Amino acid sequence: MSDFFSVLKSYKKQVDEYIFEVLPRSHSVPEINNLFEMMNDYPQRGGKGLRPSVLLIFCEAFGGSIKRALNTAAALEIFQNWIVIHDDIEDDSALRRGLPALHVKYGVPLALNAGDALAGKMWELLKDNRKILGANLTLDVIEQFLEMYNMTTAGQHIELSWVQNREWDLRTEDYLDMCRRKTSWYTCATPAWVGALIAGAVRSYREPIIDFGLDLGVAFQIQDDTLNLVGDEKTYGKEIGGDLWEGKRTLITIDLMKKADAKERKYLEEIFDQPRTRKKAEDIERVMGLIRKYGCIEGAMRTSVDLATQAREKFTRLDGAIGETQRELILEMINFMIQRKF
Amino acid sequence: MSDFFSVLKSYKKQVDEYIFEVLPRSHSVPEINNLFEMMNDYPQRGGKGLRPSVLLIFCEAFGGSIKRALNTAAALEIFQNWIVIHDDIEDDSALRRGLPALHVKYGVPLALNAGDALAGKMWELLKDNRKILGANLTLDVIEQFLEMYNMTTAGQHIELSWVQNREWDLRTEDYLDMCRRKTSWYTCATPAWVGALIAGAVRSYREPIIDFGLDLGVAFQIQDDTLNLVGDEKTYGKEIGGDLWEGKRTLITIDLMKKADAKERKYLEEIFDQPRTRKKAEDIERVMGLIRKYGCIEGAMRTSVDLATQAREKFTRLDGAIGETQRELILEMINFMIQRKF
Repeated sequence: MSDFFSVLKSYKKQVDEYIFEVLPRSHSVPEINNLFEMMNDYPQRGGKGLRPSVLLIFCEAFGGSIKRALNTAAALEIFQNWIVIHDDIEDDSALRRGLPALHVKYGVPLALNAGDALAGKMWELLKDNRKILGANLTLDVIEQFLEMYNMTTAGQHIELSWVQNREWDLRTEDYLDMCRRKTSWYTCATPAWVGALIAGAVRSYREPIIDFGLDLGVAFQIQDDTLNLVGDEKTYGKEIGGDLWEGKRTLITIDLMKKADAKERKYLEEIFDQPRTRKKAEDIERVMGLIRKYGCIEGAMRTSVDLATQAREKFTRLDGAIGETQRELILEMINFMIQRKF
Repeated sequence: MSDFFSVLKSYKKQVDEYIFEVLPRSHSVPEINNLFEMMNDYPQRGGKGLRPSVLLIFCEAFGGSIKRALNTAAALEIFQNWIVIHDDIEDDSALRRGLPALHVKYGVPLALNAGDALAGKMWELLKDNRKILGANLTLDVIEQFLEMYNMTTAGQHIELSWVQNREWDLRTEDYLDMCRRKTSWYTCATPAWVGALIAGAVRSYREPIIDFGLDLGVAFQIQDDTLNLVGDEKTYGKEIGGDLWEGKRTLITIDLMKKADAKERKYLEEIFDQPRTRKKAEDIERVMGLIRKYGCIEGAMRTSVDLATQAREKFTRLDGAIGETQRELILEMINFMIQRKF
């Protein structure tokens, strides 16, 4: 996957340069200056830059120029950054990209508001597309972002509700539906289609691209759920086992609940549904032992591979529209999504 | 002030009808259904509807039709609703419009996310202006909303920082600057100018309208700070004394700190900067006693009246552009801002 990886790095660099040019940097009122620092905090930690790269790759694949799409790609990266500020508060996550989460560093009130401020910057970039794409295409892109936005908040609500309501009566299909909303739309489906849209792709490509993106996004998320348990904290950048501490419902924990015997299940529910502060490291280790015993990680990895295969098949529906080089690159990207270590 | 009051009521009714038509109501996934309920919660509690009314009044004053501006007025009312969901979390407020705040009812994670979801609805309405105002004016309006948005988050950050940093070394001017950002832009300045903009007002009216709105908004906020201490909880809808429990820096508390002797000041700092849960009712009462002793409420009310007078003078710069009926209505509105009981 060397080609995709170098493309990812090069796109990430361009998007970052753009972002740090448009994010506000300093202000004469010291408190506002501090707000600007907070808005720059997560972007400076350097994420993967995966989502804007999907957008740029699809823009190029449909014959568009990176230059025209860069502003929108930056808006998408900013979406990812502000949404995880709020997400980290909602999940009470400890780490983000290897450093303390923003609300851990600055407290919930300021972090919540800084997330809102960063969201404003996203809409500002999208509005500024006017000079690049013209008024009509600008609003078309905003429309796509809004669909993605609505899907993400709905998916997030489902996931948070499960934790809050101590819901474990969940089918695989419930997880997949939640995950498509929470992850796939903003990670793959909308980025890919908006890239194509900016390149001038006709509307009939929308459905196959979205379908492809929805499968691929879930494959990506399952790999994330796996890394969360068995990844390397330095490479992965989040707290290993964080999902267990937060009581997250993932394909792995849902599967574990199904396979566990009655006694184990009772124990697991008790542990998962305790507030984070009352959990103990030895309990988390015991849960990991049960996950290993029932082969839940292997099961999730198989589903991830199956979904990537499905995405690959759906991608062939675009064969006529995409050049050979881009086609190869996107196939590599699919592999990256389920093999990545970060 | 009977005329303005009946106009306010009639506009509020139209905006509410519009909002409840566009807000999503039900969904087959029970969790998403619950999210929709949460998005409808604050709007259903019935606020004053003041901000959309300012927008509609200025639209009519500049010869525009209510029908063309209603969608934007609804977006503004939704702004007010989602921003206070987040604000209530940030301040840990107990009550909103006479009922428990959303995060008190549903917990912080779901409430935070519902605020985000409602914010999405605001942008969706603004995007939908396309069918009503055309693509270019739609983006002009979005641009104004973004300026308002940036001002609001910056003002909010300043206020939260003061509480978090236990900052009491504040001048009246610091408060006025914070308050213009936090309140004036979204309560008066942007609503008034966007109303005029939709009506087709020329750009040269922007500055006088914004100037007028910035003064009036601070006058409005000071009245709010006053009601927070001496209002009637049923009419006002928020917790009386809530600002003291939350340790808010208002014109009243800043003035109190200046006038208090060294011993009182030490005591006040101790009380204000304690977390809410550690404060006692008798301390809050003692603080109220000091506020009365030093006449801080009367002082704040005088500033509010002065600012309203300033706004009234600035408003005369628009005399040539506005018909007599609308002029009278706006003058009544200025009085309402500083005399209101809710």
